[in-house]
Amino acid sequence: MTIHGYMASSLPTFSHVQQAAKLLEGVVSRTPVLQSPFLDQRCGGTVFLKCENLQRTGAFKFRGAYHALVRKETTAPFHQVVTVSSGNHAQGLALASQLLGYSAHIVMPEPINALKRMRVEELGATVTVRPTRQKAQESAQELVWRHRGLFIHPFNDVDVIAGQGTATWELLQAEPALDAILAPVGGGGLLSGACLAAHGVNPSIKVYGCEPARAMDVRSSLQHGYVVQPDPADTMAEGLRTSLGELTFGIVRDHVEEIFVVEEEEIPAAMKMAFERLHLVLEPSSAVALAPILRGESVLANKRVGVILSGGNISLPDFFSLVDQHCYISPD
Amino acid sequence: MTIHGYMASSLPTFSHVQQAAKLLEGVVSRTPVLQSPFLDQRCGGTVFLKCENLQRTGAFKFRGAYHALVRKETTAPFHQVVTVSSGNHAQGLALASQLLGYSAHIVMPEPINALKRMRVEELGATVTVRPTRQKAQESAQELVWRHRGLFIHPFNDVDVIAGQGTATWELLQAEPALDAILAPVGGGGLLSGACLAAHGVNPSIKVYGCEPARAMDVRSSLQHGYVVQPDPADTMAEGLRTSLGELTFGIVRDHVEEIFVVEEEEIPAAMKMAFERLHLVLEPSSAVALAPILRGESVLANKRVGVILSGGNISLPDFFSLVDQHCYISPD
Repeated sequence: MTIHGYMASSLPTFSHVQQAAKLLEGVVSRTPVLQSPFLDQRCGGTVFLKCENLQRTGAFKFRGAYHALVRKETTAPFHQVVTVSSGNHAQGLALASQLLGYSAHIVMPEPINALKRMRVEELGATVTVRPTRQKAQESAQELVWRHRGLFIHPFNDVDVIAGQGTATWELLQAEPALDAILAPVGGGGLLSGACLAAHGVNPSIKVYGCEPARAMDVRSSLQHGYVVQPDPADTMAEGLRTSLGELTFGIVRDHVEEIFVVEEEEIPAAMKMAFERLHLVLEPSSAVALAPILRGESVLANKRVGVILSGGNISLPDFFSLVDQHCYISPD
Repeated sequence: MTIHGYMASSLPTFSHVQQAAKLLEGVVSRTPVLQSPFLDQRCGGTVFLKCENLQRTGAFKFRGAYHALVRKETTAPFHQVVTVSSGNHAQGLALASQLLGYSAHIVMPEPINALKRMRVEELGATVTVRPTRQKAQESAQELVWRHRGLFIHPFNDVDVIAGQGTATWELLQAEPALDAILAPVGGGGLLSGACLAAHGVNPSIKVYGCEPARAMDVRSSLQHGYVVQPDPADTMAEGLRTSLGELTFGIVRDHVEEIFVVEEEEIPAAMKMAFERLHLVLEPSSAVALAPILRGESVLANKRVGVILSGGNISLPDFFSLVDQHCYISPD
């Protein structure tokens, strides 16, 4: 990856998260915090769900994308917004660009998801599909040069991280006395933001990352002390296949208590449970943060636990086929 | 039906709804009110969704059931709570009984839904299944006699209606300047409560009932001026197959602007849309109130419209099979 959207000299702080929350007020949805006696029982503690699947564009990613655009438009002129993403960052950035009056060009590496592509185009963005991530990055680089474009990285960006942190900041405003916070981790933007917000409020809150066993590069990275690339990952949690960036690695290393690793079959089980008991649609990456609650991780017993439900973008046929393949389909 | 849970002399009022809201504070979830640009576009107005599918037990019914129990426990002693219901009233009453320390006996007429039965039993209630509604009512009557039981009617009860009205009251506290409110109508408890709350706040708010074309007894009842029984109904919106009661008929007749009739195929289309764009699970009865928005009912154009999403209790296999049968399954 040759394109970076940050300056190495600056690291995001709690104060950035608080400033981001002010900038995002009235723009992002203040998503609800829900409780469930069933989850409390499974957890052995008290669980608070921050429902970012009910955020605009169906995921937390809109927070960071909008915040980054607003911050960067004051520093240098640009005509076009560019990114590489086939996932929720693409939708978040497309909406942010539409609201702020920029044209957005999203380069998607194969394989792409028909639903996500359609949503990005509905938001007025141009989509180019490239066969590999490498080729997608080359195309994005060229677009940046040709059109005086601004590249917004999906996670390794100070302003993106601060924006994602506002989800946890809102959760802590609603429920200040949390002992623990769980968030899924792929590139680490959401988890880094959660770290800054949580430890800004109370340094004794324990922050846990959650990742699939089939892409457990974050646990490995923390064990090795440097960023480890995931194996060519085949987890259904598409959004968690990426490795950490330099910025997010440092924050996660310094703040995170532990990484919970989730087996592949726990993911559709959590999606099914959320459907039938919470009446919420979760995409696989989002269900990864619910799985440690459902299996009753012992360190969470008797604790007040916040969980960031990161997103809900999955088509009905995809949802059903994932759950059908992995769970015995009877009412849960 | 020989069992009535109300005294004909008393009619519920706006003040009952306000008192119910006080009694229910801290017991019911103050469910979120969500917006969606997609729905605004389809409606041609601004839509506010009151998410009672995220209520405890997954439906608004818990409001009325709990309120009725609290009110009636002050008037006469009883040892057991009894009702006839195979739906959300059963779950709502089971939880209310559990919280207030009563044993509940639920008589379910065939056909029953495995998921709903399991949930009722999880809440500590006893379930008896009877082959017909008539036989279920006889069994319930016998239980009331034998055990000094208290029968709680699912809708034709002053306290139940006042309790259901708190959903609309909360919606109007969050969004006071609504022009219109849509709610599904079966027995009419939710719609009657919506009428009392809306017209107590502002008599010019237009209240609309929504019912399936395959069980359009409410529109017929209003046209004829007396309660019409629905045809033996085969709509997938199970919760809306009942006819109005004497209490709810009068309130609906005096307050409701119009009944929107929804074709059967509009129901799964609304469920699919809610899944993929709102990331919410709606049961068919609940989707009936969303359908008039999706087809752009002309009287709602340029209006601020509240919609009561009544519940989300449906198993994943049932959800998928209903949508699969009726919609071309591709991303919406």
